[in-house]
Amino acid sequence: MELKNDLLLRVAEGKEVERPPIWLMRQAGRFLSEYREVRAHAGSFRQMIANPDFAIEVTLQPIDLIGVDAAIIFSDILVLPEAIGLSYEMIPQKGPFFPKTIEKGSDIDQLHEIAEGSNLEHTYTAIKGVVKELAGRVPLIGFAGAPWTIFCYMIEGQGSKTFSKAKKFFYQEPALAHKLMEKITEASITYLKGQIRAGVNLVQIFDSWAGVLDKNTYSQIALPYIKAICDAIQEVPKTVFAKGAFFALDDLNELNCNIVGLDWHTPIDFALGKVKDKALQGNMDPALLYSKPEQVQEATLKMINAYPKGRHVVNLGHGIYPDLPRESVQEMVNTVKSFTYI
Amino acid sequence: MELKNDLLLRVAEGKEVERPPIWLMRQAGRFLSEYREVRAHAGSFRQMIANPDFAIEVTLQPIDLIGVDAAIIFSDILVLPEAIGLSYEMIPQKGPFFPKTIEKGSDIDQLHEIAEGSNLEHTYTAIKGVVKELAGRVPLIGFAGAPWTIFCYMIEGQGSKTFSKAKKFFYQEPALAHKLMEKITEASITYLKGQIRAGVNLVQIFDSWAGVLDKNTYSQIALPYIKAICDAIQEVPKTVFAKGAFFALDDLNELNCNIVGLDWHTPIDFALGKVKDKALQGNMDPALLYSKPEQVQEATLKMINAYPKGRHVVNLGHGIYPDLPRESVQEMVNTVKSFTYI
Repeated sequence: MELKNDLLLRVAEGKEVERPPIWLMRQAGRFLSEYREVRAHAGSFRQMIANPDFAIEVTLQPIDLIGVDAAIIFSDILVLPEAIGLSYEMIPQKGPFFPKTIEKGSDIDQLHEIAEGSNLEHTYTAIKGVVKELAGRVPLIGFAGAPWTIFCYMIEGQGSKTFSKAKKFFYQEPALAHKLMEKITEASITYLKGQIRAGVNLVQIFDSWAGVLDKNTYSQIALPYIKAICDAIQEVPKTVFAKGAFFALDDLNELNCNIVGLDWHTPIDFALGKVKDKALQGNMDPALLYSKPEQVQEATLKMINAYPKGRHVVNLGHGIYPDLPRESVQEMVNTVKSFTYI
Repeated sequence: MELKNDLLLRVAEGKEVERPPIWLMRQAGRFLSEYREVRAHAGSFRQMIANPDFAIEVTLQPIDLIGVDAAIIFSDILVLPEAIGLSYEMIPQKGPFFPKTIEKGSDIDQLHEIAEGSNLEHTYTAIKGVVKELAGRVPLIGFAGAPWTIFCYMIEGQGSKTFSKAKKFFYQEPALAHKLMEKITEASITYLKGQIRAGVNLVQIFDSWAGVLDKNTYSQIALPYIKAICDAIQEVPKTVFAKGAFFALDDLNELNCNIVGLDWHTPIDFALGKVKDKALQGNMDPALLYSKPEQVQEATLKMINAYPKGRHVVNLGHGIYPDLPRESVQEMVNTVKSFTYI
C-alpha cells in the first residue's frame, strides 16, 4: 500500500524530507486517558496483547489523537521468550516476572523453536488489523528486544538495577551464554520476519539493558547478535536503540541498520561524531515534558536544529512517563509538524 | 599522624608512586562474612551507623582482612538530609524511605541548619575511633552525597529508576530547586568539614544519580553545587564520582578536585581524553569478579595498564555486590599490590 506520510521511511533511506518525522516511545500508553480506558476494559496488560482488538485500538490512538508520523505495534518484548518456552507474568506495580529462569545448560536445551499457533500470532494478527485501519496514513513500526535484553530477563526472571545475575552467567559460563544468545537471535529473526510479512514498514530493536555492560563486554556478548539480526532482515529499514550504550555508538555505526536511537544522556554532537552514515532518533528527556509548553517548544526546536537536515527522527530518549501532561506531548508534536527545514 | 601507606594521597597530589593504590567502594559490606556478623549483632544498618563501635569495627575490616590501601568511614549519604530535618527509614530488601518529602517552598523553609549534637556526631565519633585504631596504617576517606543525589532522595523519598519526580520539581520550580540545592550544599560543606576535623585524610563526593540527567541539565542543577563544595574544602584532597555522567567528564575536569571517579561504562581512553589534569579512580565492572581468579588478575592488570603511571586509584566502577566471591576480591587486591610501575 502506498503511504501518504512516509517521512520516517524517507529518513531511514537517506532521502529528502521537508521536516523530521516524529513518533514517541510508549506513545500507545498510559499518558492517554483513552489508553487507560481500553486497559481497564481489557483487564490487564497481558490481555491487551493477547487480544488483537485491544492491541489494534491502542496502536491507532496516538495517530488519531496526537497526530504522530508513525504507529508502533502495541506488544511487549517478552512475548519472544514466551514463544520459545519461558512464560512470564506481569505483576502490577512490579513488572515482568518469570516463574522459571535459565540456570544451566539443560534449561537452554529445553527451549524450543517458535511453533505454529504460538502467542506471536496475536501480534501478527494485530499488525494486519492496524495496517488495514491505517490505510496508508503513516508507516507501522514492528519491534523486538535485542538478544542481550531478552537474555537478561531469561536469566534474572525480572527487572534488576544491575542485571548482575545475567552478567555472572556470561562471566562464568560464556559458552552457554553464547548458546542461549544464538537461540534468542534465531527466534528474534523469525519473529521480526513474521511481523514484516504481516505488514510492518520498519523494525526497531530495543536493547533496553545495553547500559549495564561496558564497551568490551558489549562487543563480545551483545553486538554480534544484533548484527546477525540486522544482516538477516533485508526487507525493511531497521532502527537499533541501545539504551545507555554511548560507548558502543561507533560499533553501532558499523551495523547494517538505517537509524540509531539515542537516549537523552547522549549529547547529540557526541553521537554525530560516532554515527556518520545513518539517521539518528531521539533524544529529548521525557521529564522535560513536565515543563511549560513554551519550554517544550524551545527544547524541541533546539533538538531539531542540533541534527543535520534529513538525518533525524524526533523522539524522546526513553518511553513517555504515564503522568506526563498530554498538552506537553501535543506541543512537542505540533512543534515538529510546524517546522520546515530551510 | 604520619601515614605509613600514603599511596592514595600521593596519587591525589600528583606525586610519584611505585604502584597504584587500591580500595573498593562498599568494601565495608556484605561480601565479608565478618561484616554480616556485626550487622546481625547490631540489628540493622541504621544501628550500625548510630553506634560508632559498630561503624569503627566494619570500617577497619577490609584493612585487616583484605589489605586495601585506604579505609572509608562506614556511614550513609542519607544521614545528611536527616541532620537538616528530613528523617528516613531503611526498609529491608527495599532501601531508604522518607516518610515526609519536599513538595513545596514551605517544606524547604522548614529545613534547619545542622544542630549541635545532631546525628552526624555519630560519624565524627566513628572517624576519631577509626583514626586511632588505624594508627597511620592507611588513610581514611570521608564522604558525602553530591547535592543532586541528596535532592533526588529528598523529593522522591525513595529510590527510583528515573527520578522523574525530582526532575519534574526542577523543571517546574527551578527557583525552589536551586534554593533546596543551596541548603543541601551548605549542610554538606559543614558535614565534610566536620569529618575533616575528626580526622579523614580525603573526601569523596558521590553523585550516584548524576546519570539520570543530561549534560545541559547536569551543568545547570548539579555541577555548580559540587563546585561550591570543592571550592570550600581546601583542607584535604577531594574525589568526585558522578556515576553515569560520562557526558560531564570535561566539566568535572574543571573542578577544584584531585581525583575523578569512573563507573565501568566509561572507556578509560575516553575518560583520559576528557580529564587531563587529575587522577582517575576505577573502574572495573564489579560483575567481573564473578569470573575465575586468573580472569580477575588479567582484567586487573589490563585496567592498570590502560591508565598512565601515577594517575590511577584502582577501584571498581560501582560498589561491591554482596554475593561476590571474597577470593576474587582478594585476587584483585593482591594483583594490585604485587604490581610495580616500570
